[in-house]
Amino acid sequence: MTPADNFFVLVDWGTSSFRGWLMSPGGAVLAESRGGEGMLHCAAAGTGGTGFAAVLGDHLTRLGAAVGTPVLICGMAGARQGWVEAPYIKTPTRLDALHESAIRVDAPGDILILPGIAHAHAEAPDVMRGEETQLLGVTELGYTGLVCIPGTHSKWIRIDDGRVVAFSTYMTGELFSTIGQHSILTHALDPANPSPADGAAFREGLARALAEPTALTASLFRLRAAQLLGFEQRTDGSARLSGLLIGSELADAARQYAPLRSVRLIAAGALGRLYAAALGQHGFEVTQVDAEQASRLGLAKAAGRLWGAKA
Amino acid sequence: MTPADNFFVLVDWGTSSFRGWLMSPGGAVLAESRGGEGMLHCAAAGTGGTGFAAVLGDHLTRLGAAVGTPVLICGMAGARQGWVEAPYIKTPTRLDALHESAIRVDAPGDILILPGIAHAHAEAPDVMRGEETQLLGVTELGYTGLVCIPGTHSKWIRIDDGRVVAFSTYMTGELFSTIGQHSILTHALDPANPSPADGAAFREGLARALAEPTALTASLFRLRAAQLLGFEQRTDGSARLSGLLIGSELADAARQYAPLRSVRLIAAGALGRLYAAALGQHGFEVTQVDAEQASRLGLAKAAGRLWGAKA
Repeated sequence: MTPADNFFVLVDWGTSSFRGWLMSPGGAVLAESRGGEGMLHCAAAGTGGTGFAAVLGDHLTRLGAAVGTPVLICGMAGARQGWVEAPYIKTPTRLDALHESAIRVDAPGDILILPGIAHAHAEAPDVMRGEETQLLGVTELGYTGLVCIPGTHSKWIRIDDGRVVAFSTYMTGELFSTIGQHSILTHALDPANPSPADGAAFREGLARALAEPTALTASLFRLRAAQLLGFEQRTDGSARLSGLLIGSELADAARQYAPLRSVRLIAAGALGRLYAAALGQHGFEVTQVDAEQASRLGLAKAAGRLWGAKA
Repeated sequence: MTPADNFFVLVDWGTSSFRGWLMSPGGAVLAESRGGEGMLHCAAAGTGGTGFAAVLGDHLTRLGAAVGTPVLICGMAGARQGWVEAPYIKTPTRLDALHESAIRVDAPGDILILPGIAHAHAEAPDVMRGEETQLLGVTELGYTGLVCIPGTHSKWIRIDDGRVVAFSTYMTGELFSTIGQHSILTHALDPANPSPADGAAFREGLARALAEPTALTASLFRLRAAQLLGFEQRTDGSARLSGLLIGSELADAARQYAPLRSVRLIAAGALGRLYAAALGQHGFEVTQVDAEQASRLGLAKAAGRLWGAKA
């Protein structure tokens, strides 16, 4: 029996989450296991990787994977503070060669971790870990265009003929929560209405940021001033803040990656709806793919290249 | 004896500080009293203004002010959540007419609070309270030019022939502390080296922000990435962050208020040095005035117009 005939396991191991799938030799999802045992949990649970090994073992049992089933992992398990460091490969780099830089875990069985990607330029240094696998998942061989992956640290990636050539990370999601919780803008956000939705307030914030792309830190204070002076309502605060921050990201990315306007959007739920609306309004041609599906598709493609399993 | 022959008291009453001066009829400082009993302390200490009245009474005693000495106050004591609200006057407004909108406190004696200023335009709403008095202090009759008041909420004010016509507030200082304490950038700042100084790292951050004025939220993440990839040192983190944020403010203000390039800088200490360096590098002609002196000078001018005391 060759490995190509075997089942295999795919794992998306983030900072604070674990998602695993048992796959058939033909590439179908047979079982799924998920939990909150991300990198932070595992690093705290044991030294020398024992925390990671134990958590993976539990999930393999839940998945019903036979002993020795090969496992392919992406994400923070490969960070320096993770299980085994899978060093960043550097741009420009082919997505279809990601699997060649996978790192083998020194543990029983065939356990591999995919590398992250670094843009190692002093002028615009940047890193990703986990997103490279999503990129592989949502692009076909030879893809040229942009990919946008919104979130805590939103990423915009330029792909040229299947190679990652440049990318930028925007602190959009983290600024939204940090400013909303720890600045004067806590008074401008309605605790009863914390989740921004795509509506007039979001679109006005977006338009403001796009019209004055250098004015972000002034526009933030104006959220408060506008409410003090009766121009705006606190119930609209979080949608306006979201519009300003996403608009600021969009304005810079559009400038940075011009003239590209075709974008694969890797996102889900409410955030996906906000970005799809924002990108569409700003003249981007958007194809949206669910974020979790993107990770699984990318892992499956890399596993196929490693073990001959079907992508 | 007319009021003009009397001593008078000036008070700069901020959110978290109280500074009072007993002045001679001729405008000389005879005594000073300062403490941490700002608006927040006083509002919590008693209802209906009793907290404010008690704190002022204590300071008047410390200053050796005779009963009935007139008192002129600026700052947050006049906010809605302060002692008595001194409503914002609206731009455009003459600085030499500030005293005409002072609000009388319903308490024994002659106690007046100067108003704040609002830019009540839906497109660029903004408010100030306390800074208007500093503006009066540092400008001569008929002044035309810019004033920059750095801080938690940095302000840039355009003055035209002695009238405040427009201003913008940047959340520069608050973002510096919020991001530094509550985001991934805590890992990029050296706790042993928290205070930014004017050096190579500060100037590089400044130059980066000025070169890419729309890229702030990406430049913030790059602070972290540059350290992960070995391009930058954690000891330089806070200076770089400060350079990025001040540079972002400067880039927008320079655009907003072009072609004005003559600026009065109201600041003190390390922050004053950083801004003076940044403004100088960016081609501004800078005249620096100490922030506390600016408040006292402005209060004295307004008191002179109210009571005939010398400014």
